[in-house]
Amino acid sequence: MTVRVGVIGTGMIGQDHIRRITQVLTGGTVTAVNDVDAERAGQVAAGLPGTTVHPTAAGLIADDNVDAVLVASWGLAHEEQVVAAIAAGKPVFCEKPLAPASDACLRIMEAEMEAGRRLVQVGFMRRYDAGYKAMKATLDDGSLGAPLLMHCAHRNPSVPPYGFTTDMIISDSSVHEMDIARWLFGEEIVAATVLQPRRSREAPDGLQDPLILLLEMAGGALVDDELFVSARYGYDVRGEVVCETGTVALADVGEVTVRTANRQGSRVPVDWRDRFIRAYDTELQDWLNAVAAGASTGPSSWDGYAAAAVTDAARQALRSGQRTAVTMAERPDFYAKAQ
Amino acid sequence: MTVRVGVIGTGMIGQDHIRRITQVLTGGTVTAVNDVDAERAGQVAAGLPGTTVHPTAAGLIADDNVDAVLVASWGLAHEEQVVAAIAAGKPVFCEKPLAPASDACLRIMEAEMEAGRRLVQVGFMRRYDAGYKAMKATLDDGSLGAPLLMHCAHRNPSVPPYGFTTDMIISDSSVHEMDIARWLFGEEIVAATVLQPRRSREAPDGLQDPLILLLEMAGGALVDDELFVSARYGYDVRGEVVCETGTVALADVGEVTVRTANRQGSRVPVDWRDRFIRAYDTELQDWLNAVAAGASTGPSSWDGYAAAAVTDAARQALRSGQRTAVTMAERPDFYAKAQ
Amino acid sequence: MTVRVGVIGTGMIGQDHIRRITQVLTGGTVTAVNDVDAERAGQVAAGLPGTTVHPTAAGLIADDNVDAVLVASWGLAHEEQVVAAIAAGKPVFCEKPLAPASDACLRIMEAEMEAGRRLVQVGFMRRYDAGYKAMKATLDDGSLGAPLLMHCAHRNPSVPPYGFTTDMIISDSSVHEMDIARWLFGEEIVAATVLQPRRSREAPDGLQDPLILLLEMAGGALVDDELFVSARYGYDVRGEVVCETGTVALADVGEVTVRTANRQGSRVPVDWRDRFIRAYDTELQDWLNAVAAGASTGPSSWDGYAAAAVTDAARQALRSGQRTAVTMAERPDFYAKAQ
Amino acid sequence: MTVRVGVIGTGMIGQDHIRRITQVLTGGTVTAVNDVDAERAGQVAAGLPGTTVHPTAAGLIADDNVDAVLVASWGLAHEEQVVAAIAAGKPVFCEKPLAPASDACLRIMEAEMEAGRRLVQVGFMRRYDAGYKAMKATLDDGSLGAPLLMHCAHRNPSVPPYGFTTDMIISDSSVHEMDIARWLFGEEIVAATVLQPRRSREAPDGLQDPLILLLEMAGGALVDDELFVSARYGYDVRGEVVCETGTVALADVGEVTVRTANRQGSRVPVDWRDRFIRAYDTELQDWLNAVAAGASTGPSSWDGYAAAAVTDAARQALRSGQRTAVTMAERPDFYAKAQ
Repeated sequence: MTVRVGVIGTGMIGQDHIRRITQVLTGGTVTAVNDVDAERAGQVAAGLPGTTVHPTAAGLIADDNVDAVLVASWGLAHEEQVVAAIAAGKPVFCEKPLAPASDACLRIMEAEMEAGRRLVQVGFMRRYDAGYKAMKATLDDGSLGAPLLMHCAHRNPSVPPYGFTTDMIISDSSVHEMDIARWLFGEEIVAATVLQPRRSREAPDGLQDPLILLLEMAGGALVDDELFVSARYGYDVRGEVVCETGTVALADVGEVTVRTANRQGSRVPVDWRDRFIRAYDTELQDWLNAVAAGASTGPSSWDGYAAAAVTDAARQALRSGQRTAVTMAERPDFYAKAQ
Repeated sequence: MTVRVGVIGTGMIGQDHIRRITQVLTGGTVTAVNDVDAERAGQVAAGLPGTTVHPTAAGLIADDNVDAVLVASWGLAHEEQVVAAIAAGKPVFCEKPLAPASDACLRIMEAEMEAGRRLVQVGFMRRYDAGYKAMKATLDDGSLGAPLLMHCAHRNPSVPPYGFTTDMIISDSSVHEMDIARWLFGEEIVAATVLQPRRSREAPDGLQDPLILLLEMAGGALVDDELFVSARYGYDVRGEVVCETGTVALADVGEVTVRTANRQGSRVPVDWRDRFIRAYDTELQDWLNAVAAGASTGPSSWDGYAAAAVTDAARQALRSGQRTAVTMAERPDFYAKAQ
Repeated sequence: MTVRVGVIGTGMIGQDHIRRITQVLTGGTVTAVNDVDAERAGQVAAGLPGTTVHPTAAGLIADDNVDAVLVASWGLAHEEQVVAAIAAGKPVFCEKPLAPASDACLRIMEAEMEAGRRLVQVGFMRRYDAGYKAMKATLDDGSLGAPLLMHCAHRNPSVPPYGFTTDMIISDSSVHEMDIARWLFGEEIVAATVLQPRRSREAPDGLQDPLILLLEMAGGALVDDELFVSARYGYDVRGEVVCETGTVALADVGEVTVRTANRQGSRVPVDWRDRFIRAYDTELQDWLNAVAAGASTGPSSWDGYAAAAVTDAARQALRSGQRTAVTMAERPDFYAKAQ
Repeated sequence: MTVRVGVIGTGMIGQDHIRRITQVLTGGTVTAVNDVDAERAGQVAAGLPGTTVHPTAAGLIADDNVDAVLVASWGLAHEEQVVAAIAAGKPVFCEKPLAPASDACLRIMEAEMEAGRRLVQVGFMRRYDAGYKAMKATLDDGSLGAPLLMHCAHRNPSVPPYGFTTDMIISDSSVHEMDIARWLFGEEIVAATVLQPRRSREAPDGLQDPLILLLEMAGGALVDDELFVSARYGYDVRGEVVCETGTVALADVGEVTVRTANRQGSRVPVDWRDRFIRAYDTELQDWLNAVAAGASTGPSSWDGYAAAAVTDAARQALRSGQRTAVTMAERPDFYAKAQ
């Protein structure tokens, strides 16, 4: 079976997923697109024979030639589109965030529970990265004892000179560590604290960069996350989990070691696409396979909700300078096996 | 366009390529299979709806539902099958070796030249490995000067206790370094020498293992290749090219670093599929894309021939203990841009 | 000139320094020893021909055959002994802590200032470690911009099952990171916070282990320090300074890489002597050279005082769970060039 | 006891050893110096109070204030000086080569055997390098099975533009690998072959650089040694021993890892003194200790002879292009425990 995908949102990330479905992965095809910018949607469709351009997301979702929906629109539009897809009984892959506000995520969950089956997968692609997968396998095999701490660093070379706020470091960057920590530890995050170290002069005016985010897991483990979006030297994601009898850390990702000019070393990725391209591929292939098989096991609406709730707490912690407890609904049985 | 592939040979490697085409890659489907063991072919086809089992390779090649042929049969059968595919005007992917004997490779080249266009790609998958690709890119950018030496190691944990001969270390293992050296240096190999170090007691009775193979490139560069098929500790492929102002080496491939019990380190792959799975995927996707586009740029019949000619020389060098010049036909203009 | 050293305290660390002076380093000899346990002092002196055993520290300090004093006694005895050495005009090397209480350190400083010249060096040996020295050189050359963050880990395999308190993790372990951070950043520490993550079941009863210590530098940079004295897997000291355009981290210290049993890696030191043996040698040689030359440039009384003041704050932070400002006297001009 | 050392030869290496004895190591003092260039000897002695300048080596050796002799003169002068020291019953440390010609080494051995006790240590400092020592310990513990192969690389950034011959790559550079292979494997070298790869354009006119030297051990193990004295990028010594169930390799030696400008990596040493400074220190301290204790365990005259014999064979192999058997006397029982 070939899954006929309708793509809502044909910006950078939407186009990248279209390229993936049509040129890299198996079992999927793009039959419909929609964008708030109809012209852009038309240009994208022009390269895809047999793809319909829909003037509205609702129209795309209703299209009989669409088996499943990929939402890559602006975050504030996600709720309406995802709920509509659920209402239509169509599986939906939604880029993170599931919704910027946690109550919107709750409404999505309610719709899904009403539908009676898992229809939503959220785009937390790091769970599909070979490094994080090997880390989780190492933790899960029990050889290192219980995890106690995690040290993370999330470094981007730069952000746009205007419009990128300190708040966005939490919502756009740290959300990845929030999800990965929940997934690795198999526990929720119960509190967040944000520390504001000396500011880099390389950061855009007004941006407090770097930050240190501290996350407390339900079982007491502590995660520290360095967030540094003006790190200049490259895109570098690091992680080490400290357990009772050992540690496991992401390895460097360079393919070759070069020795020249009195140095030996390897490259650092230039950006997140470079670093996580395989994770994105694996994630979407997994989704296509799940849609074809009728059962998703990827990050769920609950995972999207939990990340939103922690993001809320972390943003509040950024403003207050205080440790802030995460306010979170109880996990419905419906999402019990979401890990 | 979906390329309809007919697969000749449904043993381990054939089945792996079928899995790849049907479950991993895009743009291909398996419409026909054939095997000398008709029962095995039938079993494989049973899992593939709409796939025809052909009693003969010739029948499969002639099948109108077959756009392109993948040859994964026994090496001695390759010549007849590849030539038949060429005669039918169908692109063919042939697992290495193109043919065990270099004169058989020459006959394939003649058939292909007669057909007037590149129809054959040989399965030298290492050219698609991220490590070797980065190595080639580093060499080609000129920053390290001319390459002078290459040090290789090709270690398998073990081979079957019976039936694996010292000759097969040359033909099955070292053929990969022969091709990769030709590709990296952009030159032919002109001579081979085989050294026989102290034998490992872990090697099966009668097997001279390890070996050191020395290859001389046309431009004078020297390649040394440690071949060790009873290395026990894992599957390990290493390579370093020494240039005039620096060196470039394959990096370790572990995804995570584990610290426990007074050691820090990462895993070594268990076998070649573990190590090169991505290279195989990329190789076959590239072939499917090339078939759809009508033009292959992968390893050619000439590359298959050259590897066979060097293998001949190396086998002779193993027997004689002497440096042995490679006897090779002149490269036809037809294959001029094969790199 | 051979420096005639009198050693006060002949326990483990004192004996180790005696071995160093007599068997490893140049320019020093041990002419006198003293210990609260006279029998132990006698046993140690028995192996050192011509070494006098003094029943009191005061007697040793007054001995005309003692040019310089090495204090390796119990921490609470340091003040009296160091002040006496200063009064006698003799250079003194004092193991850390200079004194457990910061006011005792202040009194030592006053005595030294009264003497009118630097006579005291404190045993912060990490400043002599090749890794930290290379780190400081990298920071000081300015190529990475200003330092913003430092991530540290200080892991011991284990501590004695009884008698080791959580407070001692601060005073005995983290004091090294306190000093090294001050030295690397060239700034004082102004506040400390202690976080208590999930406790390892490998820790002795009643010990809160691991801890996370957060240190704020005067210029705003932030240091996080994982302290884990029941880490089991080995003695591991890690450090990375994050600057505006790059980072610098301590490298792994293994001498060889071993590949076996599907793993590749190197050893982790078993304990602090294994890890820092060279730093101890270099530190004490530097002191002997400084004594002979009449001018010490090593860690000063001020450095000892500053570490004690930060330790006080961190211990209070451990008890209160709150960020705690460091209370510190103003730095006298006398110690202006102590870096 | 302080060993009073007389140093013959006050060039670069002699001066370095003098610095070591007087400023770094313990248990030694330099009481006499001699050099063919009397003025240079005088200048060196000027910085060493109480050191006598001898117009002749014989005079220095006869000096009652000289307990032991360090020979750092021109290689051709070694035989006479070492034999004279033996005749005087004084321990002698002789820089490599023990003598350029193997028969001269034999004469030294004869003199030493006549003296009836080990008096000579040859300056093969790599045996004292932490990396090689860890490698030997790993081999000797038997965990990896028997050693079968060794891969070496010996890279210098450059040599003087005039006067450095291809022959000297064998005698000055590869002699280190000859000795270390003998020591690691506990076996003699029985044959040598020299391969001449493509020449680097960075090499001085007339110099064939790099070379590959192949050494066959008595037990059949094979050592390949890349010798590249115009490697430009730094001083890099690499080694990996391949055993039956695993391998052990020298680790990189950088103290810190720097991440900047899209690269992560560490430094490569600039020259041999940078790389092996600790090995030189340890070597000479070991000698001083051995002299004081009356019994040397370091590299012996036999080791110096064996290296000379292999050097002879390798030079002949360089000229002939052929595998050349090493001609070596039988090992006297006197040197039976020299390893």
